[in-house]
Amino acid sequence: MEKQKKINLYIISDSVGGTANNLGQAAMSQFPGVDANVSAYPFIRGEDTLYSILEKAHKDNALVIHTLISPTLTNLIISYCEDHDLFCFDVINPVVKEIEQRTSTKPLEEPGILHQLNDNYFDRISAIEFAVKYDDGRDPKGFLEADIVLLGISRTSKTPLSMFLANQNYKVANLPLVPEAHIPETLWKVNPKKIVGLTNDRHVLNSIRRERMIAYGLNPETGYSKIDRIDEELVFAKKLYDQLDCLVINVATKSIEETAAIIVNTLQLDSKKRTF
Amino acid sequence: MEKQKKINLYIISDSVGGTANNLGQAAMSQFPGVDANVSAYPFIRGEDTLYSILEKAHKDNALVIHTLISPTLTNLIISYCEDHDLFCFDVINPVVKEIEQRTSTKPLEEPGILHQLNDNYFDRISAIEFAVKYDDGRDPKGFLEADIVLLGISRTSKTPLSMFLANQNYKVANLPLVPEAHIPETLWKVNPKKIVGLTNDRHVLNSIRRERMIAYGLNPETGYSKIDRIDEELVFAKKLYDQLDCLVINVATKSIEETAAIIVNTLQLDSKKRTF
Repeated sequence: MEKQKKINLYIISDSVGGTANNLGQAAMSQFPGVDANVSAYPFIRGEDTLYSILEKAHKDNALVIHTLISPTLTNLIISYCEDHDLFCFDVINPVVKEIEQRTSTKPLEEPGILHQLNDNYFDRISAIEFAVKYDDGRDPKGFLEADIVLLGISRTSKTPLSMFLANQNYKVANLPLVPEAHIPETLWKVNPKKIVGLTNDRHVLNSIRRERMIAYGLNPETGYSKIDRIDEELVFAKKLYDQLDCLVINVATKSIEETAAIIVNTLQLDSKKRTF
Repeated sequence: MEKQKKINLYIISDSVGGTANNLGQAAMSQFPGVDANVSAYPFIRGEDTLYSILEKAHKDNALVIHTLISPTLTNLIISYCEDHDLFCFDVINPVVKEIEQRTSTKPLEEPGILHQLNDNYFDRISAIEFAVKYDDGRDPKGFLEADIVLLGISRTSKTPLSMFLANQNYKVANLPLVPEAHIPETLWKVNPKKIVGLTNDRHVLNSIRRERMIAYGLNPETGYSKIDRIDEELVFAKKLYDQLDCLVINVATKSIEETAAIIVNTLQLDSKKRTF
């Protein structure tokens, strides 16, 4: 459908702009009939550059969402937006000011600290490399070292979920389940509280697998996508999950972000793993 | 060092809570001497549940950061925080209200829309699977289909950067560069505007590679970590980047988020790839 209405969003940040960008996405998702024209301005650290962006924003009658930490730039944006009646939402300073007041501690007021190359950062990089290395059951040794072991039959989001959790600093290994294949002995040595069994609805699997076959230029009525075969795999997986007594999540109506949040909450994983 | 001061952060969301969580992280990163005790409450959709969380927050004298879209829950939080003098930062509604006013369009007021399983979501899942499939030069066929082809010698963040860009919906393939190894013919058929050559400082590489050898229980003075060997690899890579005339980024002082933002901006990639 042609979208009739349009919003110009300016995302201004002194660093990558991830927080402001997420907020813009979340807000726009509430208006499916409105078209968003998004201009991202990351790494803005000079007054002149900021001023020229604000002039452009004013011309575009934009909504400005920003995460600028420098008081000089923040004051510039406040005074410009007041003078020119430009909408501007400061995502970061209200919270920073409150923490400052409560703790009588000055904020560093340095941009990009979230992305400092500290130990936590390098742990996260290692976690991503770990997830790629131990994806798809490539090496069962990874199970013992992992924070989370994901199990699931084909098309239960194992790989993307592993990568998403790895970006949150968890070490994840995953194993595809196939009734014919041998379950590695190592799995039985893993603490079941670290294991998550993924499952999906049979009709969802049938339709995803048919599409996958079509995408590969193959007959969609192949064994892989047949309901009987899917049922056999689901029964096999359920039996294994029961034996392991692990957490089971049906991903049929859940995004990887939602499934990841459920895993982190249910397994009560160390929240220090996050970037705080 | 022992942190002397402490802040209780409550992150409340009707969905995953990613935006509010990012904001909390960014704010706390400005106070390295302050300890953050973070409680995350995702998927909050009922008034009773919200009320009991607010009571707990009040007892903890917490800072509440929330992204609740339902007017009922938003009103509950506003009135509770006013009555009990609890700090509360609403990350989403100021922007939603402004869009509503400007476009005379009602927001859906449904939680979790950002994580709907729509075409964009499934494209992103495919992009992550693509990045894992074509990581580490596993199959040069991926170069032609990719939005971005990353090149780099060992320890230039190719894999984590690929996964991060994939999560933003870009199809990424990467190729490790080794002077002795053959450069796949396919690379010369790729539009150089899609290629990024990653590089790093010689001393950074030397120290990372030494640590890697130690982690593997090997002699750190191996050929892999020697400066002469590193220089040889860097010269080899630079020559290839010159021949390809591609964008070159030195990752020595950059996080993957920063490098990704530079790539997306410089290559002027289709911003529709993002989740808007």
